[in-house]
Amino acid sequence: MAGSSFGTIFRVTTWGESHGTGIGAVVDGCPAGIPLQEQDIQQMLDRRKPGQNPFSTQRKEEDRVEILSGVFDGRTTGTPISLEIRNRDHHSADYSQIASCYRPGHADYTFDAKYGFRDYRGGGRSSARETAARVAAGAVADRFLRMLGIDIFAYSAEIAGIAADPAHFDRAEINRNPLRMPDADAAAQASDYIREKLLGKDSAGGIAECVVTGLPAGLGDPVFEKLDANLAKAMLSIGAVKGFEIGDGFAAARSIGSKNNDAFAPGTDAVPVKVTNHSGGVLGGISDGSTLTFRTAFKPTPSIYLPQQTVNRDGEAVTMTIQGRHDPLVVPRAIVVVEAMTALVLADALLLNMTAQIDPIRDFYRKK
Amino acid sequence: MAGSSFGTIFRVTTWGESHGTGIGAVVDGCPAGIPLQEQDIQQMLDRRKPGQNPFSTQRKEEDRVEILSGVFDGRTTGTPISLEIRNRDHHSADYSQIASCYRPGHADYTFDAKYGFRDYRGGGRSSARETAARVAAGAVADRFLRMLGIDIFAYSAEIAGIAADPAHFDRAEINRNPLRMPDADAAAQASDYIREKLLGKDSAGGIAECVVTGLPAGLGDPVFEKLDANLAKAMLSIGAVKGFEIGDGFAAARSIGSKNNDAFAPGTDAVPVKVTNHSGGVLGGISDGSTLTFRTAFKPTPSIYLPQQTVNRDGEAVTMTIQGRHDPLVVPRAIVVVEAMTALVLADALLLNMTAQIDPIRDFYRKK
Amino acid sequence: MAGSSFGTIFRVTTWGESHGTGIGAVVDGCPAGIPLQEQDIQQMLDRRKPGQNPFSTQRKEEDRVEILSGVFDGRTTGTPISLEIRNRDHHSADYSQIASCYRPGHADYTFDAKYGFRDYRGGGRSSARETAARVAAGAVADRFLRMLGIDIFAYSAEIAGIAADPAHFDRAEINRNPLRMPDADAAAQASDYIREKLLGKDSAGGIAECVVTGLPAGLGDPVFEKLDANLAKAMLSIGAVKGFEIGDGFAAARSIGSKNNDAFAPGTDAVPVKVTNHSGGVLGGISDGSTLTFRTAFKPTPSIYLPQQTVNRDGEAVTMTIQGRHDPLVVPRAIVVVEAMTALVLADALLLNMTAQIDPIRDFYRKK
Amino acid sequence: MAGSSFGTIFRVTTWGESHGTGIGAVVDGCPAGIPLQEQDIQQMLDRRKPGQNPFSTQRKEEDRVEILSGVFDGRTTGTPISLEIRNRDHHSADYSQIASCYRPGHADYTFDAKYGFRDYRGGGRSSARETAARVAAGAVADRFLRMLGIDIFAYSAEIAGIAADPAHFDRAEINRNPLRMPDADAAAQASDYIREKLLGKDSAGGIAECVVTGLPAGLGDPVFEKLDANLAKAMLSIGAVKGFEIGDGFAAARSIGSKNNDAFAPGTDAVPVKVTNHSGGVLGGISDGSTLTFRTAFKPTPSIYLPQQTVNRDGEAVTMTIQGRHDPLVVPRAIVVVEAMTALVLADALLLNMTAQIDPIRDFYRKK
Repeated sequence: MAGSSFGTIFRVTTWGESHGTGIGAVVDGCPAGIPLQEQDIQQMLDRRKPGQNPFSTQRKEEDRVEILSGVFDGRTTGTPISLEIRNRDHHSADYSQIASCYRPGHADYTFDAKYGFRDYRGGGRSSARETAARVAAGAVADRFLRMLGIDIFAYSAEIAGIAADPAHFDRAEINRNPLRMPDADAAAQASDYIREKLLGKDSAGGIAECVVTGLPAGLGDPVFEKLDANLAKAMLSIGAVKGFEIGDGFAAARSIGSKNNDAFAPGTDAVPVKVTNHSGGVLGGISDGSTLTFRTAFKPTPSIYLPQQTVNRDGEAVTMTIQGRHDPLVVPRAIVVVEAMTALVLADALLLNMTAQIDPIRDFYRKK
Repeated sequence: MAGSSFGTIFRVTTWGESHGTGIGAVVDGCPAGIPLQEQDIQQMLDRRKPGQNPFSTQRKEEDRVEILSGVFDGRTTGTPISLEIRNRDHHSADYSQIASCYRPGHADYTFDAKYGFRDYRGGGRSSARETAARVAAGAVADRFLRMLGIDIFAYSAEIAGIAADPAHFDRAEINRNPLRMPDADAAAQASDYIREKLLGKDSAGGIAECVVTGLPAGLGDPVFEKLDANLAKAMLSIGAVKGFEIGDGFAAARSIGSKNNDAFAPGTDAVPVKVTNHSGGVLGGISDGSTLTFRTAFKPTPSIYLPQQTVNRDGEAVTMTIQGRHDPLVVPRAIVVVEAMTALVLADALLLNMTAQIDPIRDFYRKK
Repeated sequence: MAGSSFGTIFRVTTWGESHGTGIGAVVDGCPAGIPLQEQDIQQMLDRRKPGQNPFSTQRKEEDRVEILSGVFDGRTTGTPISLEIRNRDHHSADYSQIASCYRPGHADYTFDAKYGFRDYRGGGRSSARETAARVAAGAVADRFLRMLGIDIFAYSAEIAGIAADPAHFDRAEINRNPLRMPDADAAAQASDYIREKLLGKDSAGGIAECVVTGLPAGLGDPVFEKLDANLAKAMLSIGAVKGFEIGDGFAAARSIGSKNNDAFAPGTDAVPVKVTNHSGGVLGGISDGSTLTFRTAFKPTPSIYLPQQTVNRDGEAVTMTIQGRHDPLVVPRAIVVVEAMTALVLADALLLNMTAQIDPIRDFYRKK
Repeated sequence: MAGSSFGTIFRVTTWGESHGTGIGAVVDGCPAGIPLQEQDIQQMLDRRKPGQNPFSTQRKEEDRVEILSGVFDGRTTGTPISLEIRNRDHHSADYSQIASCYRPGHADYTFDAKYGFRDYRGGGRSSARETAARVAAGAVADRFLRMLGIDIFAYSAEIAGIAADPAHFDRAEINRNPLRMPDADAAAQASDYIREKLLGKDSAGGIAECVVTGLPAGLGDPVFEKLDANLAKAMLSIGAVKGFEIGDGFAAARSIGSKNNDAFAPGTDAVPVKVTNHSGGVLGGISDGSTLTFRTAFKPTPSIYLPQQTVNRDGEAVTMTIQGRHDPLVVPRAIVVVEAMTALVLADALLLNMTAQIDPIRDFYRKK
């Protein structure tokens, strides 16, 4: 079925396989009049680029994005924005092993079970390379959000079980270390662990944390289209993600009501403000005007150097050692994907929310 | 916006407020020919009923479901199934306090921020009562799933920080204790804690675990419509839910690849089987034929007996003590809601998956 | 599949069969703050009522609508509005004939082909009675549109091949004659024809014309969501409709460009106005600020008194004479259905259009 | 809003402007395993190519389609198929006139009204060039339909008021004359008329007729997703279309029930067959197993050589003579667009229909 689209009004459709001709995204429903250049998108895409840290894969993807439509005289026109990244580094490797065997922790088997066969080159559609298209689309959404004063940033809160200390949080540090941790000490500790225990052998997971400021109250819809429900879907739609929590999340399940409830206090212009933010910025699935915070758990990269037990397409047991150079960590490069998916959810929620009350609708049509 | 519908082919739309005339659900896209009676739905609904344990609210909701359409001669006809539960116990209470003040941890403020005003009686649309409509709809999905040999069950894995011991897991125990825990000892311990520390004062959260057996491989779609992404959305759409994890979830983020990867071994009929199930039954967002397992974190009930700091609609600081009898726990009654939402996700995924390959499509149309 | 919903933001889901417990509609995505009473809906519903003219069926449907949710203190709350009409006149008739035979021109056979069986009582879901739910929902949309100064009205432009003369158009006449024609002479002529040639024997079709004034320019979206494309879908979704045309429609296919193009002239406030309106109020699928006009062709009522050749469920040839009293005309009672579906299309288009440009979006969120 | 997608399961998203970098389509939800080559798509695209007849524009569009994803080893993989056509003939012309003035009959004004500005080069997104992307996508759908034995073909039933005589219908003739008429005499007559009266001056409209054979009964869904409702939407979404009718269409409105009803007769294998086909292949919005036939009315090309009255962006009256060479007819080149949109509607309906009954669903999952 058509599972490659995301969003209702601000709607993205992605396409492309790891080692095909290219990958891309069509952003439909973006408002007209937003200044947009390829450079705006390229910047976000460059943050996803491999080869930026000593641990990540050395595949030299240039990932040059091209805007093919929907922008005229430097501004969005309201028509679909087609973004394309041609693959460059897809020299025909030897795929015979991955073609015939199911790599543990990968989607090889489930694609075969569902579709009868698969594009096995580099993982095909289930490759992490697919996320480049999301980042390109997310960059458009991000451009829109910044015009409304909304700021999204994410970072590695935990790598291989080593957590950044919230007391040492330093936003500027995030882009200084290759692990994208906001705490230099934790980053150093995690780097040492990876270098000593994992490199050339195994892999580790981690937790990404995302923070959004400047969000107005009122985003998200009751019942099935809660803002946090859509964020959860957005995060779990990223490969390797196994968990999501908003605000205190699983810790809230161990708290008590009197501690977990956020008291309200009078704010400026009679707008209530929350004294604490255990809820992570939503109440009843609707943004409450405070900072949005949520966490996303990533499993360890499934491609490892060690030999693994599996079966081939004929159902026979085989021992498999995956060829090539593997990234022992997925989180640092996934940070920008988390931001991109967040931007997509919020852009859609902002547009949908404009129709909630009759008075602004009347104002809108009276003005015209 | 239209946030009250869920699903693409098997699609549910719910309506109703806590203290209005009633609540209901329209199930559209249910296949024709499924035997269905009010009794099938009532059974599932009765498991959600309050007043079944010493801790839950005593509101006497009879919750009698009526099937108004879509069933003829005892079978579904393929046309929309309208399910209705008239409210009975909505004597006009004094709502002046809740009308004018924002209860901490509730959606009172965000509804006002979004819509300008709200139906404040009993929480209106944001009341947990809304979930009765989901359960009614989920019962229809469950009826369908059982015809395909799929079994869903959920339970309280943790209450107030007291966890059921997996080594003592006993499915039969789940319905024996009012906390819906699969471990009698843990249930007794949690009961004692609640009785001694919370009753009449405070509230606690917990974690629901859901298990699905009999699921074929192939459900879910790559990229944005991953099976676990839709489960995450379904769970986070339930009020009071703050987190979701599939398989090992957040623990996977602290594991290493060689442990977290599930090895494949030859199964019967050349179908590969997984030796372990850290992934929780999905790979790349598609069901892999093993047991589906996931966990959902619920915050403590926001309604508590203790006085709380908040503001009124005029933005003035007030101290509020919420009137009435409060349920100190949301998880035991939410178990059936978790099952219902799971059934809705799976019913839709099963139908969507039928169009993935050309050969069964040709078979289907040749037969006719 | 889930075919009982219509619209993207202003979204309606209907349910119910002709002779089941009742029929209804859930209106989701209606803006909050719109004054709404049962009486507003009842008025529109009453215009659909049978038995209002000497030709229509005498089934005594009271069609009392009840608002079950989504309205509080006399205003819409932004949550789903559930509307219900319980069936009253469904005494168990003898359905053995219709149960076993396929009525020509009806959906009996296609329902069986699709679903394997059908609720045959009074046509079940394919009965014209289903449109009462659309009218109830359309009345809510109409209430919203009137707040924006938008006026919709429809009438019978042609009955049994006898056309109203545009030169004699009189809006007030529409509700004066039972055929809902805007030309008293044509109405009298058509009445005579029906009385003399059809009553007790055969049936006739006709053409409904719909006119919308007060519509702002800009509604509808390029490519697939053109305003006229959605109107066409809305009209063809009404049972017995066989054609749709906007503006000059099929006549435009026989015109030439220099006559069919509508010249622009300067209007007030530098807004261009069209000198003619061959286009019927849209250009490129987007409303152009002029009057919207379109026509819908209805086939003759398929239920007639004359014996007809058909087959039964066993595939055997039979001669069938349909029992009961048949309405020789569908158009007069369908006028209000045309208006209701038009209101649903326009309400959705108005809401969707609010997100087309960045500047009003910034204004909206700055204000808040 | 996101208006550039069409379909629910078999879902197409198009992008691109007339004189931008290119145009394209993403086909998501196409079943896996369908043989597909660029050549299959190119063939259909070539039938839309301009410059094939003495009347059509001489713009030399090569319209080379490239498949960028979703096909592997010559077969569809079930993942999105990205189709791209780079624009070649978009040398920077002088657009100052069209940039500042509103061409009558075009969407220039409505795009400005909706979006605040527009890509005016060659009509931008509202150019007929957009339909090339639909044809490319429709070719994929058509490939799928042919595997199920379904045949779609369209032709010009009427050009400039000159109708093909059904008694002279010759399918082979359609591709022999540049007007795509199935009647050589009518084609000659229409050619003469165009050459003598319109060329270099004015333009004409026409009517396309589409015929589909091999369609099983059961496609389409009751109420809002009727097969003919979706066909109507599909047709009206094509630029310049002003009307749609299925079967006898508007003529049915002037018929009587006893003539318009199609009698049933016993067919082979106890499947009923219709003796006539006034309904055009649907009953109650569901395909009835007979031939599907419908007609689409196209207005005259709005670009003409004669000077026209209009206004500029400043609201001032101007006389405008549109530069360049204009195609006096839209229908012959639109024939393949009608076929493409029909294929998209039917592909989606075929997939959606597979979930209508429980028994084939059980068979499907038992087999696996």
